[in-house]
Amino acid sequence: MTQSVPDIVVRRLPVYLQALLHIAETGQSTISSRELGKRLGASPAQIRKDLSYFGEFGRPGLGYDVGYLIRTLERILQLDQDWQVIIVGAGALGHALANYPGFGANRFHIVAVFDNDPARIGTTIGDLVIRSVDQLAQVACESRIDIAILAVPARAAQAVTDQVIACNVRAILNYAPITLTTPPGVHVTYIDPIARLQTMTYYL
Amino acid sequence: MTQSVPDIVVRRLPVYLQALLHIAETGQSTISSRELGKRLGASPAQIRKDLSYFGEFGRPGLGYDVGYLIRTLERILQLDQDWQVIIVGAGALGHALANYPGFGANRFHIVAVFDNDPARIGTTIGDLVIRSVDQLAQVACESRIDIAILAVPARAAQAVTDQVIACNVRAILNYAPITLTTPPGVHVTYIDPIARLQTMTYYL
Repeated sequence: MTQSVPDIVVRRLPVYLQALLHIAETGQSTISSRELGKRLGASPAQIRKDLSYFGEFGRPGLGYDVGYLIRTLERILQLDQDWQVIIVGAGALGHALANYPGFGANRFHIVAVFDNDPARIGTTIGDLVIRSVDQLAQVACESRIDIAILAVPARAAQAVTDQVIACNVRAILNYAPITLTTPPGVHVTYIDPIARLQTMTYYL
Repeated sequence: MTQSVPDIVVRRLPVYLQALLHIAETGQSTISSRELGKRLGASPAQIRKDLSYFGEFGRPGLGYDVGYLIRTLERILQLDQDWQVIIVGAGALGHALANYPGFGANRFHIVAVFDNDPARIGTTIGDLVIRSVDQLAQVACESRIDIAILAVPARAAQAVTDQVIACNVRAILNYAPITLTTPPGVHVTYIDPIARLQTMTYYL
């Protein structure tokens, strides 16, 4: 089943989940695909089709059970477990990321932050002491690290990538504006605000 | 022509452009779709098909003229002009964004930063003085603002969105983890690291 679900569908599941969590907070226990679609600017048909990849959830005329759908999406996305995350790069962006409470609140635990600047190494961000990037391989190889977030300059990104992959890290969230070369089985996601702005300008 | 180009293709064009700019820096003047694909982890066929939406660029056996393709992509994406950008929210993320040299280097000019925290208002980020969000409507309505970047908490994002849209801003880059409601003709792009991590965990 995993292989047959398009990436674009998987990418929408967290958006559905987030909306459902907001809905659950209000105490609402069921929702129609139409109402969910209206909240998300998506068509009810798209929502029904996306969810149908994973089974039969909705009941005609009754809609979706919000709590059940939340638990199911969390299971599908493997969010019913904890993930260990490191941040490489402790500049302004690395600081903003390390301080962001959303990671921990969603079971993405920032366990270490690295930098190569002697002026930053040894200083703290919240409870985390910034470590030397020289310790990166040791930490990444000796702990179970699931995800590395790269907040380094473009010129440093590939070397950091090679190091963490050598330590069996299989997911990278890359903020450096450069395409990384990685072996099969490693998942890289790019967050580049410039590229996103450059896409919007096409439509303006 | 504009209407028929899929969004997913438009989203790849900035990635092609970035790679071509790197290639141009090395002095290389032509490139094959195969070589470009190898750099980007994409198939040559995809690159040829994507670019074919906009005309005939490559010559069989010779490949693409790097400089010409750069200029053409910049024109297609409307990057041959300057864009005026505001940042709303001057917390850790807003600071990181306002300090990021990539915006100005790509003709996205940050012209104002806003916050609602009296302790931040009046302080500076580089050359920019943080203004009160109470001045947002005035600044956005009296200047030509092309793009608003939202680095505010989720609870504040819709109100800020409504304000900037009322002032004719037509593009929003939203870092707040919430789906915004906007009228037709407004382009919203979401950058949510949690959602991106939650997509990767599906594959782990």
